[in-house]
Amino acid sequence: MTKEKVGIGLIGLGTIGGQVAKVLRDKAEYLAQQVGCPLVISKIKVLPQDLSRPLARELPPDLFTTDENEFFNHPNVDIIIELMGGEQPATEYLKRSLASGRHTVTANKEAIAKHGAELLELAGQHGVGLLYEASVGGGIPLIAPLKQDLVANELTGIFAIINGTTNYILTNMDKQGMEFATALKRAQQLGYAEPNPVNDVEGIDAQYKLAILASLAFKADVRPEDIHREGISRLGSRDFLYARELGFAIKLLAIAKQENNTIEARVHPVFIPQESFLAKVDGVYNAILVQGDLIDKVLFFGQGAGPLPTSSAVIADVVSAARKVALGIASQPKWQIVPGRSVKPMAQISTRYYLRMSIADQPGVLAQISRVLGDNRISIASAIQKETDEAAQSAEIVMMTHTSREDAMQKALGELAKLKVVREISNFIRVENIDG
Amino acid sequence: MTKEKVGIGLIGLGTIGGQVAKVLRDKAEYLAQQVGCPLVISKIKVLPQDLSRPLARELPPDLFTTDENEFFNHPNVDIIIELMGGEQPATEYLKRSLASGRHTVTANKEAIAKHGAELLELAGQHGVGLLYEASVGGGIPLIAPLKQDLVANELTGIFAIINGTTNYILTNMDKQGMEFATALKRAQQLGYAEPNPVNDVEGIDAQYKLAILASLAFKADVRPEDIHREGISRLGSRDFLYARELGFAIKLLAIAKQENNTIEARVHPVFIPQESFLAKVDGVYNAILVQGDLIDKVLFFGQGAGPLPTSSAVIADVVSAARKVALGIASQPKWQIVPGRSVKPMAQISTRYYLRMSIADQPGVLAQISRVLGDNRISIASAIQKETDEAAQSAEIVMMTHTSREDAMQKALGELAKLKVVREISNFIRVENIDG
Repeated sequence: MTKEKVGIGLIGLGTIGGQVAKVLRDKAEYLAQQVGCPLVISKIKVLPQDLSRPLARELPPDLFTTDENEFFNHPNVDIIIELMGGEQPATEYLKRSLASGRHTVTANKEAIAKHGAELLELAGQHGVGLLYEASVGGGIPLIAPLKQDLVANELTGIFAIINGTTNYILTNMDKQGMEFATALKRAQQLGYAEPNPVNDVEGIDAQYKLAILASLAFKADVRPEDIHREGISRLGSRDFLYARELGFAIKLLAIAKQENNTIEARVHPVFIPQESFLAKVDGVYNAILVQGDLIDKVLFFGQGAGPLPTSSAVIADVVSAARKVALGIASQPKWQIVPGRSVKPMAQISTRYYLRMSIADQPGVLAQISRVLGDNRISIASAIQKETDEAAQSAEIVMMTHTSREDAMQKALGELAKLKVVREISNFIRVENIDG
Repeated sequence: MTKEKVGIGLIGLGTIGGQVAKVLRDKAEYLAQQVGCPLVISKIKVLPQDLSRPLARELPPDLFTTDENEFFNHPNVDIIIELMGGEQPATEYLKRSLASGRHTVTANKEAIAKHGAELLELAGQHGVGLLYEASVGGGIPLIAPLKQDLVANELTGIFAIINGTTNYILTNMDKQGMEFATALKRAQQLGYAEPNPVNDVEGIDAQYKLAILASLAFKADVRPEDIHREGISRLGSRDFLYARELGFAIKLLAIAKQENNTIEARVHPVFIPQESFLAKVDGVYNAILVQGDLIDKVLFFGQGAGPLPTSSAVIADVVSAARKVALGIASQPKWQIVPGRSVKPMAQISTRYYLRMSIADQPGVLAQISRVLGDNRISIASAIQKETDEAAQSAEIVMMTHTSREDAMQKALGELAKLKVVREISNFIRVENIDG
């Protein structure tokens, strides 16, 4: 042992920060055994309003500061844990922590997704670790497996349910026949969705997490803005009925694939086979399927959020960093990027499509629709037509296409929308034939 | 870098050894990037018959030796990979490797299950790592998550399908209505079961793996002989019919629990709820559910065997050890045992039971059976009676009990077997109400 104790600086005392402080206190003896010497919280950087939290009043008052200079200049801080969240000032704090030579642990998906490459570069320069297991999948080990345990593999695919809020909403739309607005309200009442749910329901949270996972898995710099994103608010309960009839479930998936150094990365609702493992993941749970040349596929499942699971991931990173501090060991080899790997434009992906339209109930309509699709080289695999409204003389038609290019599909959708006989393009959903 | 290259010594060139040698050769450039310097196979210890394998003829002849002294005395071996399997001489080779100050990687579940504590102690004495990710669950990361990623948790439960052969057989008995012998023959024809299947079907393989997982998860020295074990050969297709009728699936589970420093560890067929995740794991796949105070539950799923997945785990361990060698870093903190944790006798466990008997079809039988159970303080939750053979005047009765002690159940079973009206106790199976 080169150290008698390892000093911790904590930024943020919200739900997650409070839980991490609690674990560090309640499990102090056990964690000291694991590290080889005690972990001691030296300073906590808080916002003024945090000082009235119950935990803040249980801890010695001189542990807290609202002054960032006082915090960063503290002499007995070896590891900094950033748990305030959001892009700024968190990203600046992360930089300052790394630049000051401290191992840095964070649960901040937005900061890592947007600035991960730069932050990891900085960590490398200063010989310290940047650890972010808690940024994706709560207590499910994901970052460490991608960095270490699966290192022998050429990874080729990630298929992930990584937003519990949307999976809870979709489960209710599917199992209870709820419409989106009702299911969202229920999720909000139960605390599974925020009062402003846009980050979850529009797939922004999943986009951040996929950027982190794809960057690691494919050793590339995948940014959130590289990832095509669609949320779940356009889905209707009728889509779930048709999906079931056709043998599929609907999930909001974060999908990333890599082949010949070209990356595909997208977040949107997909049809997946009913018998697949991911189709069976209900409620707020997360599940992440990883494909590689040696493992074939491995799946990780668990609670993807919440203070307790997130604290499990944060503390694991802290213990890992603290062992290095205690033993005086240099940091990990830094992140390596395979040169020339880039994300291809969404227009170039190929997939099957589900298409639901409201059409005029008159002869020749199907011929007109088929012609538009055929002109764009999209072939129809199956079609279901149902009369829905006799008074309005309109019917609903559902089509499944064979594999087609996204740009062709988008062009066809534009042309279909202009047909007089098409009253409304109610929805189109991509299909992913995942085997797992 | 303190080293220009890291030398590897490989013991065994069977299916797994050959695949590992192939990955080390085919991915040499990539692995060198990951480690920071090249990984070079310096010597391979083989049996004479291995020299006729195709791979052996592709590699330089002077790489091979059948002489163990020549192998262990080689000057350029930093890491030894043991892939010969079996208890001896593998365990002696592992000891010799560790004692000579080499990081040691193995896929040998039997050696680690039986001698893990001693080997880890030896590794600690010599400042090197003993790594065995490949010993359980093939390419599924399990050992590293238990050692590192879940370190903040007080782990309380492991529920695992960790033998693909038996899960394949049970899936066929369940889905195809096959009897055990037919399903076993099919598994043998497909190469999923050995010609001598006893290690798999009697649960010995699962017992080794559970000893390894429970020792790590509970920081205790759990030996195979501490683990109660029953195989799947007594199961009949009728048990699957009743299970389904009652809302259960039948799986061979490896179960370990820890509460107040008392450990429960057992391998046997169990009834688990149909809607649980583990019930949906079909075929040769493995799935391991881990429970802890912070994570609640996390599940790992994938291919638990086979040369490719196993090589993924072996190479991950080799890369981890090689980074230490390359950077001249000391080994991990050694395995820590929580003193006073022991496995309680099977007689003391409590669970619910499913009981299937062939009985005389005459009045008063149920009363006699109920009296025996009642005398042993076992209460009946439900009973199904079906007439099965009018000529023999015998009927089949199936009972589910409330939670009872194992010793009481065993005593009751002995008394029931002596009743004239009980023709046969066809089976009894424990019930596990897992939520996952």
